[in-house]
Amino acid sequence: MTPFLTRIVRIEWGQCDPAGIVYAPRFLDICGESTILLFEAAGLPKKRDMLGQLHVAGFPMVDLSARFLSPCTYGDDVSVETAAPVFGNSSFTIDHRIVLDGRTCVECTEKRVWTVPAPDRPGGLRSARVPDAVRILFA
Amino acid sequence: MTPFLTRIVRIEWGQCDPAGIVYAPRFLDICGESTILLFEAAGLPKKRDMLGQLHVAGFPMVDLSARFLSPCTYGDDVSVETAAPVFGNSSFTIDHRIVLDGRTCVECTEKRVWTVPAPDRPGGLRSARVPDAVRILFA
Amino acid sequence: MTPFLTRIVRIEWGQCDPAGIVYAPRFLDICGESTILLFEAAGLPKKRDMLGQLHVAGFPMVDLSARFLSPCTYGDDVSVETAAPVFGNSSFTIDHRIVLDGRTCVECTEKRVWTVPAPDRPGGLRSARVPDAVRILFA
Amino acid sequence: MTPFLTRIVRIEWGQCDPAGIVYAPRFLDICGESTILLFEAAGLPKKRDMLGQLHVAGFPMVDLSARFLSPCTYGDDVSVETAAPVFGNSSFTIDHRIVLDGRTCVECTEKRVWTVPAPDRPGGLRSARVPDAVRILFA
Repeated sequence: MTPFLTRIVRIEWGQCDPAGIVYAPRFLDICGESTILLFEAAGLPKKRDMLGQLHVAGFPMVDLSARFLSPCTYGDDVSVETAAPVFGNSSFTIDHRIVLDGRTCVECTEKRVWTVPAPDRPGGLRSARVPDAVRILFA
Repeated sequence: MTPFLTRIVRIEWGQCDPAGIVYAPRFLDICGESTILLFEAAGLPKKRDMLGQLHVAGFPMVDLSARFLSPCTYGDDVSVETAAPVFGNSSFTIDHRIVLDGRTCVECTEKRVWTVPAPDRPGGLRSARVPDAVRILFA
Repeated sequence: MTPFLTRIVRIEWGQCDPAGIVYAPRFLDICGESTILLFEAAGLPKKRDMLGQLHVAGFPMVDLSARFLSPCTYGDDVSVETAAPVFGNSSFTIDHRIVLDGRTCVECTEKRVWTVPAPDRPGGLRSARVPDAVRILFA
Repeated sequence: MTPFLTRIVRIEWGQCDPAGIVYAPRFLDICGESTILLFEAAGLPKKRDMLGQLHVAGFPMVDLSARFLSPCTYGDDVSVETAAPVFGNSSFTIDHRIVLDGRTCVECTEKRVWTVPAPDRPGGLRSARVPDAVRILFA
């Protein structure tokens, strides 16, 4: 995996459980935020401005898989590495890796769907082909 | 304090920190949810249906105070007691108490504001007097 | 999937994101708590009492996969169905299904490892074969 | 208030609620983490190393108050400003302020207690006078 975005994240006390290690779902919060930052790093507007400027309503998760290889604890400064999306038609997958001192602690793959407002239902969404203007940013 | 709503909540592993006790902000999640359930218990529609049926957009928190008197841990089945709101004009306060085996563990007071859509700004909110139809439910 | 444990969970406002639906990692909090309750429902002591009574230190997650088929929103009372564990030697997998009005919204499979205190390292853990006394509870 | 520690925090999608703004308890997660970083910034070891090096078991929250003056949303890069602790004997208070574009959004005051292992009860804690070696770091 070649990271497109790498960021350092401090593991917080409030993300850890009574065993003293990160509660597994909190790792998925961290990966999900990296997905948002990935699009921003590629040059797209902030997610909150995407609907107005890009006509995209969001990219809900449809599939998730993760492997937890080594624990992390509060005070760890982990490296969160995120690869460029691999685009299907309306879906895309994103690989994340959380690394501490050169050791991979978590591997996570998200599959998400590009959605736009559905014209026929107020508040409704439908999937749509990821625009070429987005694909090209990661090419 | 006379409870208007009492519910039993199981403290979860994922709500506890490396000290093995509830991470303090999680208690405020529990109280905040009791506020929502309080209105529902009084006979109002579910919060998600309030905008359509009651013209209320929400009741954001403006002030919070809490005392943490005794810790709770995962597996505890605590009693969350919530008093009827004390109404001002557009604001109201709600008292919560979290009790375990007759011992008060947390006392929390929320102050919130009744808000409705602002007619002049799309997506905007403004505070509004709490309707008499709501006040009477707790009288 | 035949559920061994079914519980009704109210989806909370604080578990939902700006799209108005459950933020995906929160579903995994719900499933993880069901895993804990599953062992308790089978007759084992509460998780916090397991170390003393069963010599088990925990069962950390090593692998997770989930499919998000249909969204849930705050106020939904979902049914969380959890199957009996499928035991390997020291690992086991648990299937969860979150259902709303007969429609499956989430499918999740957790793989966890049975761990006990490592005698040679204070605070250390090692994996161990799941005891027959535990297996028999789900047979 | 004179900040002793200031850090920039990106507000995450997963910290915001269906109203599109930060769910109030999440602000308290942010402040609580700043308290931990405050001690580290003052020159103390990481919290996880404190028990071994400083004989301190933790500093649980006993009292919390917060005012929510202006909302924040995902994508906001807020400034979290934290003042030096004000020490009593075994307790101390810490003021936090969350600022966006020069506007104070949240004011929060935490009261915590310095605790050490209780010699007579395994796993037990008791409050203790904050050591002079800690006080002097903020003088």
